[in-house]
Amino acid sequence: MKLGDGVEQAIHCVGLLSGVEGEGVLSAAALAEFHGVSTSYLLKHLQALSGAGLLETVPGPKGGYRLAKAPADISLLDIVLAVEGPQPAFRCAEIRQRGPNPLPGRYFTKPCGINAAMLKAERAYRAELAKVSMADILRALAAEDDGGIAERGCLFLQNNQRAASRKG
Amino acid sequence: MKLGDGVEQAIHCVGLLSGVEGEGVLSAAALAEFHGVSTSYLLKHLQALSGAGLLETVPGPKGGYRLAKAPADISLLDIVLAVEGPQPAFRCAEIRQRGPNPLPGRYFTKPCGINAAMLKAERAYRAELAKVSMADILRALAAEDDGGIAERGCLFLQNNQRAASRKG
Repeated sequence: MKLGDGVEQAIHCVGLLSGVEGEGVLSAAALAEFHGVSTSYLLKHLQALSGAGLLETVPGPKGGYRLAKAPADISLLDIVLAVEGPQPAFRCAEIRQRGPNPLPGRYFTKPCGINAAMLKAERAYRAELAKVSMADILRALAAEDDGGIAERGCLFLQNNQRAASRKG
Repeated sequence: MKLGDGVEQAIHCVGLLSGVEGEGVLSAAALAEFHGVSTSYLLKHLQALSGAGLLETVPGPKGGYRLAKAPADISLLDIVLAVEGPQPAFRCAEIRQRGPNPLPGRYFTKPCGINAAMLKAERAYRAELAKVSMADILRALAAEDDGGIAERGCLFLQNNQRAASRKG
């Protein structure tokens, strides 16, 4: 079981966007350069976050991204589901319907015990992630910071934050 | 987040192997044909189950696999970890150490809040899977069976179970 690299990138992007003031935005290019990842790759994840209603997208050459919600209202689960999609990790391929002697369709009207157990575990996973907001993450980060993390973020925002009016 | 197809195949193979009597074994080819999957692909997963101590491998042309433990002592977690590996789903790439202005190494001596939260969720996931044994799965399956599932398994075992002496 593996989460894509995009999850980590998306969480850190949301963290940085939490520092954007007022109507400001950050461009995908600036966020990608800061994290040392490709812009096209990051763009896909930023668009997924936007599609999930976590970010606002301001189009155009001076556009970029800002949070659509307060950090307290964005959970780690929101970000994971936005980037990875809503499907559960275990996806039953119903292999008992394959082979030379498949089981009749009447056995597949509801999830089998295996699928039910896997989905129960997934619910426990998601429930834990839903408990943690980006505000919690930023608070914990600040508590351990001797100043270096905040300084790095502030410098990035100073150099890259763009004024842009709200959408619509 | 996605588990590989191998997890479902491995669970069903362990289920079938639970019906093997005494010193008998089932070959990878027979298990693959029954499930309509490629033998080489399934072999990888059977070897992973064997490497994790869940199956015994009897080598040679008349060899095959049998359970190394009772179904009550094999959990869904055992199977998932054997097939998918022990690494957690979230693998921190420490992207804050990348880019033109990386954070100094002193911030990476322990897992950050993001990694800690993701690992906590993974522990909840694994704890749920650890609670469910293959004996539980087989019991639930039998409770819903009108006879067709058992008949299919028995027929397969009759036609494919090979006598083989215990290893060593």
